[in-house]
Amino acid sequence: DFMNALEEVHPAFGVSEEELQQVVQNGIIRYDAVVDELLRTGQLFVEQVRTSTRTPLVSILLHGPPGSGKTALGATIAQLSQYPFIKLITPDNMVGFSESQKVAAISKVFSDSYKSPLSVIVVDNLERLLEWTPIGPRFSNAVLQTLMVLFARRPPKGRRLLVIATSSLRPVLTEIGLSESFDSELRVPPIATLRALENVLHAVQLFHTSEEANNARRLLSQAGFASDEADETSATLHIGIKKLLSIIEMARQEPDNMAERLTGALMGLGM
Amino acid sequence: DFMNALEEVHPAFGVSEEELQQVVQNGIIRYDAVVDELLRTGQLFVEQVRTSTRTPLVSILLHGPPGSGKTALGATIAQLSQYPFIKLITPDNMVGFSESQKVAAISKVFSDSYKSPLSVIVVDNLERLLEWTPIGPRFSNAVLQTLMVLFARRPPKGRRLLVIATSSLRPVLTEIGLSESFDSELRVPPIATLRALENVLHAVQLFHTSEEANNARRLLSQAGFASDEADETSATLHIGIKKLLSIIEMARQEPDNMAERLTGALMGLGM
Amino acid sequence: DFMNALEEVHPAFGVSEEELQQVVQNGIIRYDAVVDELLRTGQLFVEQVRTSTRTPLVSILLHGPPGSGKTALGATIAQLSQYPFIKLITPDNMVGFSESQKVAAISKVFSDSYKSPLSVIVVDNLERLLEWTPIGPRFSNAVLQTLMVLFARRPPKGRRLLVIATSSLRPVLTEIGLSESFDSELRVPPIATLRALENVLHAVQLFHTSEEANNARRLLSQAGFASDEADETSATLHIGIKKLLSIIEMARQEPDNMAERLTGALMGLGM
Amino acid sequence: DFMNALEEVHPAFGVSEEELQQVVQNGIIRYDAVVDELLRTGQLFVEQVRTSTRTPLVSILLHGPPGSGKTALGATIAQLSQYPFIKLITPDNMVGFSESQKVAAISKVFSDSYKSPLSVIVVDNLERLLEWTPIGPRFSNAVLQTLMVLFARRPPKGRRLLVIATSSLRPVLTEIGLSESFDSELRVPPIATLRALENVLHAVQLFHTSEEANNARRLLSQAGFASDEADETSATLHIGIKKLLSIIEMARQEPDNMAERLTGALMGLGM
Amino acid sequence: DFMNALEEVHPAFGVSEEELQQVVQNGIIRYDAVVDELLRTGQLFVEQVRTSTRTPLVSILLHGPPGSGKTALGATIAQLSQYPFIKLITPDNMVGFSESQKVAAISKVFSDSYKSPLSVIVVDNLERLLEWTPIGPRFSNAVLQTLMVLFARRPPKGRRLLVIATSSLRPVLTEIGLSESFDSELRVPPIATLRALENVLHAVQLFHTSEEANNARRLLSQAGFASDEADETSATLHIGIKKLLSIIEMARQEPDNMAERLTGALMGLGM
Amino acid sequence: DFMNALEEVHPAFGVSEEELQQVVQNGIIRYDAVVDELLRTGQLFVEQVRTSTRTPLVSILLHGPPGSGKTALGATIAQLSQYPFIKLITPDNMVGFSESQKVAAISKVFSDSYKSPLSVIVVDNLERLLEWTPIGPRFSNAVLQTLMVLFARRPPKGRRLLVIATSSLRPVLTEIGLSESFDSELRVPPIATLRALENVLHAVQLFHTSEEANNARRLLSQAGFASDEADETSATLHIGIKKLLSIIEMARQEPDNMAERLTGALMGLGM
Ligand SMILES: Nc1ncnc2c1ncn2[C@@H]1O[C@H](COP(=O)(O)OP(=O)(O)OP(=O)(O)O)[C@@H](O)[C@H]1O
Ligand SMILES: Nc1ncnc2c1ncn2[C@@H]1O[C@H](COP(=O)(O)OP(=O)(O)OP(=O)(O)O)[C@@H](O)[C@H]1O
Ligand SMILES: Nc1ncnc2c1ncn2[C@@H]1O[C@H](COP(=O)(O)OP(=O)(O)OP(=O)(O)O)[C@@H](O)[C@H]1O
Ligand SMILES: Nc1ncnc2c1ncn2[C@@H]1O[C@H](COP(=O)(O)OP(=O)(O)OP(=O)(O)O)[C@@H](O)[C@H]1O
Ligand SMILES: Nc1ncnc2c1ncn2[C@@H]1O[C@H](COP(=O)(O)OP(=O)(O)OP(=O)(O)O)[C@@H](O)[C@H]1O
Ligand SMILES: Nc1ncnc2c1ncn2[C@@H]1O[C@H](COP(=O)(O)OP(=O)(O)OP(=O)(O)O)[C@@H](O)[C@H]1O
Ligand SMILES: [Mg+2]
Ligand SMILES: [Mg+2]
Ligand SMILES: [Mg+2]
Ligand SMILES: [Mg+2]
Ligand SMILES: [Mg+2]
Ligand SMILES: [Mg+2]
Repeated sequence: DFMNALEEVHPAFGVSEEELQQVVQNGIIRYDAVVDELLRTGQLFVEQVRTSTRTPLVSILLHGPPGSGKTALGATIAQLSQYPFIKLITPDNMVGFSESQKVAAISKVFSDSYKSPLSVIVVDNLERLLEWTPIGPRFSNAVLQTLMVLFARRPPKGRRLLVIATSSLRPVLTEIGLSESFDSELRVPPIATLRALENVLHAVQLFHTSEEANNARRLLSQAGFASDEADETSATLHIGIKKLLSIIEMARQEPDNMAERLTGALMGLGM
Repeated sequence: DFMNALEEVHPAFGVSEEELQQVVQNGIIRYDAVVDELLRTGQLFVEQVRTSTRTPLVSILLHGPPGSGKTALGATIAQLSQYPFIKLITPDNMVGFSESQKVAAISKVFSDSYKSPLSVIVVDNLERLLEWTPIGPRFSNAVLQTLMVLFARRPPKGRRLLVIATSSLRPVLTEIGLSESFDSELRVPPIATLRALENVLHAVQLFHTSEEANNARRLLSQAGFASDEADETSATLHIGIKKLLSIIEMARQEPDNMAERLTGALMGLGM
Repeated sequence: DFMNALEEVHPAFGVSEEELQQVVQNGIIRYDAVVDELLRTGQLFVEQVRTSTRTPLVSILLHGPPGSGKTALGATIAQLSQYPFIKLITPDNMVGFSESQKVAAISKVFSDSYKSPLSVIVVDNLERLLEWTPIGPRFSNAVLQTLMVLFARRPPKGRRLLVIATSSLRPVLTEIGLSESFDSELRVPPIATLRALENVLHAVQLFHTSEEANNARRLLSQAGFASDEADETSATLHIGIKKLLSIIEMARQEPDNMAERLTGALMGLGM
Repeated sequence: DFMNALEEVHPAFGVSEEELQQVVQNGIIRYDAVVDELLRTGQLFVEQVRTSTRTPLVSILLHGPPGSGKTALGATIAQLSQYPFIKLITPDNMVGFSESQKVAAISKVFSDSYKSPLSVIVVDNLERLLEWTPIGPRFSNAVLQTLMVLFARRPPKGRRLLVIATSSLRPVLTEIGLSESFDSELRVPPIATLRALENVLHAVQLFHTSEEANNARRLLSQAGFASDEADETSATLHIGIKKLLSIIEMARQEPDNMAERLTGALMGLGM
Repeated sequence: DFMNALEEVHPAFGVSEEELQQVVQNGIIRYDAVVDELLRTGQLFVEQVRTSTRTPLVSILLHGPPGSGKTALGATIAQLSQYPFIKLITPDNMVGFSESQKVAAISKVFSDSYKSPLSVIVVDNLERLLEWTPIGPRFSNAVLQTLMVLFARRPPKGRRLLVIATSSLRPVLTEIGLSESFDSELRVPPIATLRALENVLHAVQLFHTSEEANNARRLLSQAGFASDEADETSATLHIGIKKLLSIIEMARQEPDNMAERLTGALMGLGM
Repeated sequence: DFMNALEEVHPAFGVSEEELQQVVQNGIIRYDAVVDELLRTGQLFVEQVRTSTRTPLVSILLHGPPGSGKTALGATIAQLSQYPFIKLITPDNMVGFSESQKVAAISKVFSDSYKSPLSVIVVDNLERLLEWTPIGPRFSNAVLQTLMVLFARRPPKGRRLLVIATSSLRPVLTEIGLSESFDSELRVPPIATLRALENVLHAVQLFHTSEEANNARRLLSQAGFASDEADETSATLHIGIKKLLSIIEMARQEPDNMAERLTGALMGLGM
């Protein structure tokens, strides 16, 4: 009945593909070496789960500031694994769920995964799954306890599972005792160098001429952004790839003025 | 079945028109340059959503003191977009709803919007939707989490959505972690100059003769209201357009005494 | 169907008449100029709602110490309006209601009022409607949010509404954010002068001879109550009309001793 | 149908009689002048309700330390009124009631009372009705709000009501805002003089010979209890009549040793 | 129908017998004078209830450190009373009960007892019945209020009731206002002298030869345990009989080493 | 019907076998003397329950840092007992259970055990059963109270029960009053010496040649890990066997680099 189980799994897999597609639709821009490194490390865990008999369960956490690309990276690692069971657990699909409906939905994905010899589950946006709010603070303890148990529960004999969770509130995870559940933590940093920024601008073709690009570079320098993160006298760039892409699109609305709006928006962030 | 979906959307659109009409029935008085500027910026976001392929979702926040005109402005921007789907989410229509009924109603509007290629949703009066009260503090975490997810959830492929939210408690939004959900924030200021005040008086025709108007101006000057916001020795005018319109109507009750009552009411505000 | 709506409204009106009658059954004693002034100001708001097209909704708050006469005054202003729809919302009729039953009952009165061209709703004793208690503090946030929305929700086109609310805990209303809902606040003061006190005694005919009355005046002077509030060396009189009427009736039980008991009871209040 | 109403009331009255009988079965010992005075003051309120047309509702509070005799006194005043409707509301009859069952039961007694022209309701042991506990603190806000409304709600035209409540936690009542509901408060003191104590001993015939009685008096004096409360150097006697009666019965178990056991128990109380 | 009532009571009585048997199955070891004294005092209360007409209800509390023997002593006093109705209320029988099921079960025992002329109810382990936990703190207020009312509610005319409650958290009872409910409190102390300890060892026949016993005594002396509690330089023995019996059984597992293990375990307790 | 009861028990036993197998599937590595000692002490308690008539119930707690091997050791002791009833209570099997379902499931295992003359119940991971979270803190008081009662409730006459609980939050257990429930506590320490570490490496055959092993030992020494715990100048090794096994498997992914990765991971732990 292993064959049977796999049958059952397939359709779920199909759905997941689409969901994963959705979250990576803008693609991964390799604006910095760290991007490659994160993908490669993810790949290593994929291999460990596939091969080591002693660790049938590995859980990792992708954390970093809002919009730094955690979801896109997690989903990409999952897709690249080519495991027969790939599934995304995301609050986007749980709007209006009661606490117990959430617990049931999450738990079902893990149970389903046990039917596949090799599975990867992306648990996206832990803070929203937990309904965390700093006032109180309040959160769903039922969801928290469920995650804690599931992240540590060994799959049945002969099954292997990789869990990839994402969060932009790592200190909160520590506070509530959830970070101990992970075998490893990977930090997804914001964009912090002019070079990385320019790589993104280049990739999304904001400027059509190199003149425009040079002009922008000059404006950014004048605004105090240094090309090197280590230069301590310069203004600090600190922006998630997601927000940066959004700012770029706003700038694009005023074709005559793109460099200025871009610089203005970046300068406005810290205040 | 896209055609089908649009059909379904139309009636909802009709209802919305009426609702929006209701909140802007007193019209927009262009008492200050800031009013035009707010409308123009709103227009820019409308265009960005319409044209940029990389940002199918844009969320903005209109915030400012009570009665400064946030709802009227938000609804006006929405109406001017001429998008096929325009909808107002307002606590006025949710009196007596349970928490889960609220969540369902809010969530339904977003799901409905996904059937239209272009949509704008005005989410009015966040603090009342959240049932916020400073004692405790208490609020509906279920509604908060729903809004946080919906404000960030990408519409399905090929659909675009502009979200315009309003609130007079911006610091609260920051505290509860909701302000990070917005791509941009626009401040709707109170009336703070004599000139703006006079523009309003003129627009609503409180005085019938220029003598009366001059008399009022003199009284206001004597009361210490300077015609220029920058004059630091003068009394500060700081009043929402909504409250101002209400005070004007009270003054109108005593035709012989309008200027005095108006000045008196404005002086009484700060105390 | 406007005629239809009015039909529906009439019976409700009848019920209300009786309810209002009940709360003003002891009548209004005009013991001080402030009483007339409060009634006149109420009348002005009644007229504003009747005539101004720009303010179809006006909400006012009558506040003052316990027993100062807020309910009787509010009900009297409502009755004098002679609007076709007059309704009292009072906790007296909601004993044993669940939170949602309260919300439904309150909300129904407002919805009913929208069928009449002109309506006045007296919302009595906000703190009891809110189930406020200072320990905790606790209160019904559902009722609070309902009131906040209803006090600010514009009636439909062509309908006008005057809301008169009463409370003896104005600071609490401010704390929970409810006082911003009112266009105007009127203070109902306690009795604080000997003259006002004597006016009341005269009106209820406690003493049958002027000798008795003079004797009582002498006793009150000896006890240190000055006839003029401004006299700072004298004991302060500070008593609601409701409590005063109750003390007078107790004194009436001992016909031989009325002046002494009255003075004693008034002196005992402050301690 | 007034006659009808009275019919309905009678059986309830019967039940009440028995209940009231139960709480006063040990009788009232007139050990001190204060006992007579309390009964007389109660009688005055009974008369006020019967005769004054302006105060159809009077609420009084009997408060004092645990076991001081509040329930017995309240029930006795009620019985002596000979009103046609007399009813006891007591937590003894509400064990296992839910909050809403309590509210309904309490509210029903008040509604029933409105059918009788003259009624007295004894609301016994407010702190237990409120389910008060100092840890938290916790209590039933629903019951509290119900009592606050009912203690102030005027009976319908032509009906009169006397409410007698008891509590040994008067400061708590003030804290939660309940004490403002009463027109008058009467303190039921503990036994604090040797004379009062002896009066009780005499009434319950603990000692059979005057020798025994004298011996006991000597022992109590030696133990430092002075016969006069004002004597500040002596040990303070401070004991409720209920506890005293209980101690006396324990002492009675050892006939040879009664005076010693009594003195010992009284000395042990303060420690 | 009194006979009837007794019939009904009998079976309940039977059940209780078995339950009581269970908690005293290890018997009472008279290791110290205090044991006899406690039993004798209990007997006195049994007699008071049987004979005094003025105290049909007596409630006492057995309190002391965990395992000091409260349950066994309370059950023994109850059994020795030979009253026709003897019943044990214990959390052991209420695992998984909801709050209202607990209240109903407790309340039923009291109601049942009113059918018997003489009853004793042992209310064991108040802190577990109350579901007390120091974190929060949390507890069942419904159970607390039920106990407070039942411990003070007079049985109907002609019925008498002795309540024996046990607890190892007396300070908590005071904090939550429950200790005022008891007419008397009896302290069940831990074992604190070498002599008492030896009496227990003797009773359970740990050692088979007097040589072994002497050896143990020597070891205990060397460990610093003095034979007299008053000797302040010696280590303090402070152990409940229940824990002591458990330690003794562990020691019995290593026949060659019993005295050493016993001493070691006793020394380890304080650390 | 004792035979009957045993019948009923058998299948449950079968299930348990499988569950227990699951948690010990990696086996017990005897890397240190403490491992043997823990197993031997466990064995002693097994014998005490089997033989002593006075202690039909013994409860012990295995506590220690996360991943130190508590579950595996507890399950192993249970399996070695060869009692007819062996059962594992684990949060792994209770995902999505409501509070009352958990209580029922736990309670059922204890009730089932009473049908067998000799039983051992492993109650694994108390903090997850209790749904403990330090924020608040929050936990299930219903589960806590259930455990407190069950850990102390004597099995019926003729039945014997050994309870083995595990937890990595012993201070929490003390705080909530649960640690008093245990007759004995056994600490399961982390790996803290190089020798123990090497024993593990040897057992899992990470290195294939002694050269590799020597190289690793050198690297670890250079990193400051001393072979003796007592050497205070050296870096402290402090790692649970579970985490160590996980690190070893990661290292195994890079065959050329195993010693370096291992040392790096161990050094990274403390930071
Ligand atoms: N190198 C990159 N890494 C990640 N995302 C990238 C990269 N390059 C481009 N992107 C795009 O940037 C966006 C990153 O958004 P994503 O939702 O993954 O961020 P996030 O950190 O999960 O945000 P949030 O904190 O809101 O959950 C995606 O649209 C993705 O396609
Ligand atoms: N320039 C203007 N901007 C906004 N509103 C205007 C303007 N001129 C006139 N108005 C009128 O002023 C009123 C503004 O009220 P509105 O409800 O929009 O304020 P608000 O800030 O949403 O109030 P609240 O804080 O109570 O939600 C409306 O009646 C609107 O028609
Ligand atoms: N001038 C007056 N103003 C108000 N009430 C008056 C006046 N003269 C007499 N009364 C009588 O005094 C009583 C006032 O009681 P009312 O219930 O209105 O006071 P309140 O302030 O609402 O009390 P509460 O704070 O308890 O709600 C009524 O019986 C009313 O008939
Ligand atoms: N003068 C007296 N006043 C009141 N009670 C008396 C008096 N003389 C004797 N008693 C008896 O004393 C007892 C008083 O108990 P009661 O229950 O009335 O006190 P309580 O103050 O209500 O106690 P608690 O604080 O527990 O409610 C009754 O049994 C009553 O019959
Ligand atoms: N003198 C004694 N007094 C009480 N119990 C004794 C005595 N001698 C022996 N025992 C035995 O000691 C044990 C006392 O346990 P018991 O459960 O009564 O203590 P407890 O104080 O109620 O414990 P807990 O605090 O856990 O409720 C019983 O097994 C009882 O048979
Ligand atoms: N000597 C040992 N003691 C315990 N476990 C060992 C030992 N040697 C190897 N192991 C293996 O180490 C692992 C210990 O994991 P286990 O789940 O028992 O730890 P734990 O302390 O219960 O962890 P947690 O704190 O997460 O509950 C198991 O896989 C077990 O097979
Ligand atoms: Mg994300
Ligand atoms: Mg608005
Ligand atoms: Mg009032
Ligand atoms: Mg009483
Ligand atoms: Mg006990
Ligand atoms: Mg474990």
